[in-house]
Amino acid sequence: MLAALGMSAELHLKRRPGVWKMLMVAVCVALLSGLQAQDLPGQVSIILLGATGDLARKYLWQGLFHLYLEEVGKGHHFRFHGTALTSTEQGQEAIAKVLESLSCPGDMASGHCAELKAQFQQLSEYRRLKTPEDYLALSKDIEAQVEHEGLRETGRIFYLSVPPFAYVDIARNINSSCRPGPGAWLRVVLEKPFGHDLHSAQQLAAELGSFFREEEMYRVDHYLGKQVVAQILPFRDQNRAALDGLWNRHHVERVEIVMKETLDAEGRTSFYEEYGVIRDVLQNHLTEVLTLVAMELPVNTSSPEAVLQHKLQAFQALRGLQRHSAVLGQYQAYSGQVRRELQKPDNFHSLTPTFAGILVHIDNLRWEGVPFILMSGKALDERVSYVRILFKNQAFCVQSEKHWVAAQSRCLPRQIIFYIGHGELDSPAVLVSRNLFRPALPSASWKEVEGQPGLRLFGLPLSDYYAYSPVREQDAYSLLISHIFHCRKDSFVTTENLLASWVFWTPLLDSLAHEVPRFYPGGAENGQLLDFEFSGSHLSFSQLLPEQLVPGPDSAPLPSDFQVLTAKYRDSPLISAWPEELIARLAGDIEAAAVRAVRRFGEFHLALSGGSSPVALFQQLAAGHYSFPWAHTHLWLVDERCVPLWDPESNFQGLQTHLLQHVRVPHYNVHPMPVHRRQRLCAEEDQGAQAYAEEISALVTNGSFDLVLLGMGTDGHTASLFPQSPAGLDGEQLVVLTTSPSSPHRRMSLSLPLINRARKVAVLVMGRMKREIAMLVSRVGHEPKKWPISGVLPDSGQLVWYMDYDAFLG
Amino acid sequence: MLAALGMSAELHLKRRPGVWKMLMVAVCVALLSGLQAQDLPGQVSIILLGATGDLARKYLWQGLFHLYLEEVGKGHHFRFHGTALTSTEQGQEAIAKVLESLSCPGDMASGHCAELKAQFQQLSEYRRLKTPEDYLALSKDIEAQVEHEGLRETGRIFYLSVPPFAYVDIARNINSSCRPGPGAWLRVVLEKPFGHDLHSAQQLAAELGSFFREEEMYRVDHYLGKQVVAQILPFRDQNRAALDGLWNRHHVERVEIVMKETLDAEGRTSFYEEYGVIRDVLQNHLTEVLTLVAMELPVNTSSPEAVLQHKLQAFQALRGLQRHSAVLGQYQAYSGQVRRELQKPDNFHSLTPTFAGILVHIDNLRWEGVPFILMSGKALDERVSYVRILFKNQAFCVQSEKHWVAAQSRCLPRQIIFYIGHGELDSPAVLVSRNLFRPALPSASWKEVEGQPGLRLFGLPLSDYYAYSPVREQDAYSLLISHIFHCRKDSFVTTENLLASWVFWTPLLDSLAHEVPRFYPGGAENGQLLDFEFSGSHLSFSQLLPEQLVPGPDSAPLPSDFQVLTAKYRDSPLISAWPEELIARLAGDIEAAAVRAVRRFGEFHLALSGGSSPVALFQQLAAGHYSFPWAHTHLWLVDERCVPLWDPESNFQGLQTHLLQHVRVPHYNVHPMPVHRRQRLCAEEDQGAQAYAEEISALVTNGSFDLVLLGMGTDGHTASLFPQSPAGLDGEQLVVLTTSPSSPHRRMSLSLPLINRARKVAVLVMGRMKREIAMLVSRVGHEPKKWPISGVLPDSGQLVWYMDYDAFLG
Repeated sequence: MLAALGMSAELHLKRRPGVWKMLMVAVCVALLSGLQAQDLPGQVSIILLGATGDLARKYLWQGLFHLYLEEVGKGHHFRFHGTALTSTEQGQEAIAKVLESLSCPGDMASGHCAELKAQFQQLSEYRRLKTPEDYLALSKDIEAQVEHEGLRETGRIFYLSVPPFAYVDIARNINSSCRPGPGAWLRVVLEKPFGHDLHSAQQLAAELGSFFREEEMYRVDHYLGKQVVAQILPFRDQNRAALDGLWNRHHVERVEIVMKETLDAEGRTSFYEEYGVIRDVLQNHLTEVLTLVAMELPVNTSSPEAVLQHKLQAFQALRGLQRHSAVLGQYQAYSGQVRRELQKPDNFHSLTPTFAGILVHIDNLRWEGVPFILMSGKALDERVSYVRILFKNQAFCVQSEKHWVAAQSRCLPRQIIFYIGHGELDSPAVLVSRNLFRPALPSASWKEVEGQPGLRLFGLPLSDYYAYSPVREQDAYSLLISHIFHCRKDSFVTTENLLASWVFWTPLLDSLAHEVPRFYPGGAENGQLLDFEFSGSHLSFSQLLPEQLVPGPDSAPLPSDFQVLTAKYRDSPLISAWPEELIARLAGDIEAAAVRAVRRFGEFHLALSGGSSPVALFQQLAAGHYSFPWAHTHLWLVDERCVPLWDPESNFQGLQTHLLQHVRVPHYNVHPMPVHRRQRLCAEEDQGAQAYAEEISALVTNGSFDLVLLGMGTDGHTASLFPQSPAGLDGEQLVVLTTSPSSPHRRMSLSLPLINRARKVAVLVMGRMKREIAMLVSRVGHEPKKWPISGVLPDSGQLVWYMDYDAFLG
Repeated sequence: MLAALGMSAELHLKRRPGVWKMLMVAVCVALLSGLQAQDLPGQVSIILLGATGDLARKYLWQGLFHLYLEEVGKGHHFRFHGTALTSTEQGQEAIAKVLESLSCPGDMASGHCAELKAQFQQLSEYRRLKTPEDYLALSKDIEAQVEHEGLRETGRIFYLSVPPFAYVDIARNINSSCRPGPGAWLRVVLEKPFGHDLHSAQQLAAELGSFFREEEMYRVDHYLGKQVVAQILPFRDQNRAALDGLWNRHHVERVEIVMKETLDAEGRTSFYEEYGVIRDVLQNHLTEVLTLVAMELPVNTSSPEAVLQHKLQAFQALRGLQRHSAVLGQYQAYSGQVRRELQKPDNFHSLTPTFAGILVHIDNLRWEGVPFILMSGKALDERVSYVRILFKNQAFCVQSEKHWVAAQSRCLPRQIIFYIGHGELDSPAVLVSRNLFRPALPSASWKEVEGQPGLRLFGLPLSDYYAYSPVREQDAYSLLISHIFHCRKDSFVTTENLLASWVFWTPLLDSLAHEVPRFYPGGAENGQLLDFEFSGSHLSFSQLLPEQLVPGPDSAPLPSDFQVLTAKYRDSPLISAWPEELIARLAGDIEAAAVRAVRRFGEFHLALSGGSSPVALFQQLAAGHYSFPWAHTHLWLVDERCVPLWDPESNFQGLQTHLLQHVRVPHYNVHPMPVHRRQRLCAEEDQGAQAYAEEISALVTNGSFDLVLLGMGTDGHTASLFPQSPAGLDGEQLVVLTTSPSSPHRRMSLSLPLINRARKVAVLVMGRMKREIAMLVSRVGHEPKKWPISGVLPDSGQLVWYMDYDAFLG
């Protein structure tokens, strides 16, 4: 029945991604009810692939033993199959050694421990698993053994502790030859890496998806098994009353998610060189933690479906990362290690970052404006990992500081720290400043940390915190193996979440591919070299290095190396500079025009073009122009594509995203072009152009805009007035429908005569692509039919050209 | 010629308030050029009224002497007339005593000092000034003396160091009998208080305005003469390069403007009881400082006109204060002192605050969201006054704290402090954290402060600051008297600025008139009793007091004393609670409906009513609902007044101010009613109602809004559907034009049939005024023609009544 369900689920999956969640529930219910309702006791087989490897020897066998200790006597039967590619003899020897080293919890009597360990050893066996036949044989053996013992098969767990290149073959073999029979479930556990970027992750996911259903796959991020990380959501849930009013942008100053290492990558460079710190730590561990902190809290935090769904929503609210969202470093010895370990030539220099600081913003009402700082690095001064939520100081303490009482004063730092491990405290812990609130934690599993005189954490003595640590420290893998058994899908990375994370990180990784990281000596010697800071969404190192002030032979000169150049172009003033400075200058000129117009007339009418060049201008206007009279500014469109206003291609949509959302222009001062009327696009009979012309006539004195911002196309078009297309080049019409050579073809545009009535026209031309047309247009006369831009010549207003050096100097 | 100019200026003054500024310049130029161009040397007469009073004896005579020392030998002649109401003999005696006590700057040779002092004594005389004849005689005497000495009269300064009730009589006498002749100027200096609230300040300003022109009046706020306060603008100007990027909401964490006193009001309660701390300190001193910090920096900071104009703009950007913008205190001994000094009965308790903390927000792009905290109080733990600009910590320091270097680490506090005086430093100073930048100060008048080991200020040792103090400490009055002579109008309070300040403070003073202040013991014993904190724009004491948790006999019970009441009203669910809780509940219900609708249909159509009750709801939705799906919400209007959308009476304007500005609803999801088409209001032929109906039909499936929010008028109207007016009560029309009994009469409204198509209708009814109609409507049947609200009965949707206890329980 489940198989039948599964098949229809695969069909549905493409249409309704929510369906697997319901299925997942069904599977888990089947497990539990199966145990109670049926006659035969059930058996679970656990197959550990790569059973002789590092991870298995260090953590996984211990985790399986822990599961056995937890579940034995609860009605389940277990069998454990360690498998690998090596011969039976070698394997058995290795496994025997591991099994001998297993340990019981500290509070278990040693006799009882020995007894259970012996049982576990008996239930565990090694076998070679290589060919499809091996898999088939394993399956048969399990079936035979179950039948022989009078049991019923409940399910099989395949734990793949193998390199990722082996996944697909193994998956094919499991699917074709080793699935349990009807009524029993299959779970396949995968270890990272799950791809290298979005593309490879999608590919791997598609391949795995052809063998397994979503609910069958358990992707491990061992951070989700760390006790403190696993406590984040329960903590938020159990302290809702105190946190409800605090957990938002009004109260949170910043969030830091940090994993610092003292070790470097020596001995592992063959892996590290391909991945680097972002793929190794940030894309997975720190991102998982980020979503746990940032997500909306579901009503029921113990529902895996609700948690996963809310996590996905958190991903969707992440603001895209850009090159300036990151700072990168590399410890100085790294390239030498790579050269040695990977036999690279002496002149080889790696660009792989071993340190990264990233600034993440979340564009929703809860978190807007709150910086989330993610940081990780190798060869740093200490080993520690934590999440720190620092609250804003919104208090004013009337007495002078010397009277402040640490545990009460609201003027001293207030913070919550999820201390994941290591560091000066050297144990996992949850810390809450005493001037914040007394947190609730489950008293059976969390105890108050004992005082450590002199220990200060994050600016406060330990005694200024309510501090709790686990009664019994538990390894992440033990916890995760238990969660696999109990179907706690929210402790694992679903395909949707994995891809969402890669969607978030891949553009940054691409844009940083050729970035030279800052070199650091390593350890305490790093000094303040790696400290970084943010302004808006820009991140940069706090200390400038001399060599970064002087452009190297290959790097472009900095904007400040040139003055803004003023000259003439087509007999009108030309302002030329590097892009950043050009935009700053144009923004300044627009603000000056706005202030002047508002002072004289009480309002400022600004007509803006779409496209990519103005985006930087919009951002500049939105961020830096504090005295811009937005409340008295009318915004008009120079031209528009015949698409709905909410289409990403709409010029208006760009204006909304990059400018309108950030400034306070009254709703009725914003004038989108009516390209979409009566649910049709630019239909002549809907008279959109006429309506816009009427609106302009009604509000703009003489139809003279105070400022019109134009661009210039590589074909000499401007606004949406195109060569060889007469509409709008002359005549009485103020607004016209036109046809573009490129898609979407239909456009609405201000006409040339209307543009030429403006008090000021600014033409912004940027980029090397414009070089040729800029040169051409500099020579032609008044030929608007060939080059519409040549028809821009204000009747009595001023025309100014703003060109960056790439466009002007080539 | 100046008099002629003055007359025409008065005529102009009413039409163009800017004109006096040009005149002022003219006057000052006349002073300077007069000295150079004319043949006779000029004389300035300074008449100090109240010359034997406290202020005059302590500061003003010394200030006049200082002016004399500064200006003697620069071509001016001076005469000083001390006047009062007392007899000539008594007055002369008192003045002689004061003149004897004058001191020279420390670096002047004592012989030279004695000589100048003797000259000054000779030029100073006492005379009684009481009747109009006295004034006339003074005028004649000055004229005669000037002529006798072969001089030309340059101008007269009248310094009124008298109680405010005497102003008008004196002003009348000066104007009628003691103005200088043509070609000489008049300056009248006034001491606070300048009124008690906006009304009295306007009255006083109007009276003074009938005697003097604006440029003739110099209103003193002695804070503007404090050296550090006077340095704020020059500091901002001279450090533009460093501050340009920092002096804004992206970088400033908070601004504190503080004046703490240890003294109490004993001996001055007759004055204090009428004024209190807000009128005594905040409305004037701290507000002046606030504007100096917050204003946009004029290009030329030494232009008094530019400074005053920018100051006025700063006033205009201040967000209105509300009752919750303040916390008030009173030292415990105060009422006893008032009883003793003012002979009040034993049961008299004063409500006058002696302590206030105020949270000010500035609604412009530079300062939006930055808290400006103003605080002053008597009987506190120390005497100190300062402005503290604390910058945000936007750095992440990678090393653990123990490696941080104080003067460099960007993670330690970064602040600029204008230390106005007293406190632990005990001298005026400008402090800039060393991890910020090295400030430029004029080296002739400012020197680096010498180290004081162990001294910590604002969390940092003094050595962590660049600290500068004046080379020579100068009294505020000396500086101001010099500025009067030099026409530095920007060191004084103009009528426009004075009234702007009262416009800002008066509503708060009114709303706090009956507020009981928190009592505090005084001095260091205050502990943390007065600490306060803010959340959004709400300010409150950090410590709750037990007595404030239990409602007293006269106070209303707190919202938390009652549960939300659910019952039935007109057979539909009724939710009743105290206003705050009711609004919170309604906002929660709307959010839940929005989330549900977006999940099911991808969008949420919400139709909102105007009026005052929804304002609190809008604010609640804007502030607290982090997961509201605004990006997928369409906002519609239930009704609209036929006024332009930017009219303050427009329902849309309320929606924009309280909701739209704060959330991110896409522009095209906002649907104001088209009451204003073709520059006409609700003209039938413009078919606005039809257009809105079409818009609804095009976007809202079946015309079924997801939620319609209605109110109920005291006449039983709802939306803009009024009793005895048939439009919109039935029929096919979705949107109708209607007539209201109250102005503005013409309205546009959704029709009852359209409202009843909604999935959910919420009716919000609040306030005692609604009690009667609520009772009446509870009994009537379906009679929409008499009570339109009774016609609200969704066809298949749900109707819920939200009534506060005042409306429901009366």
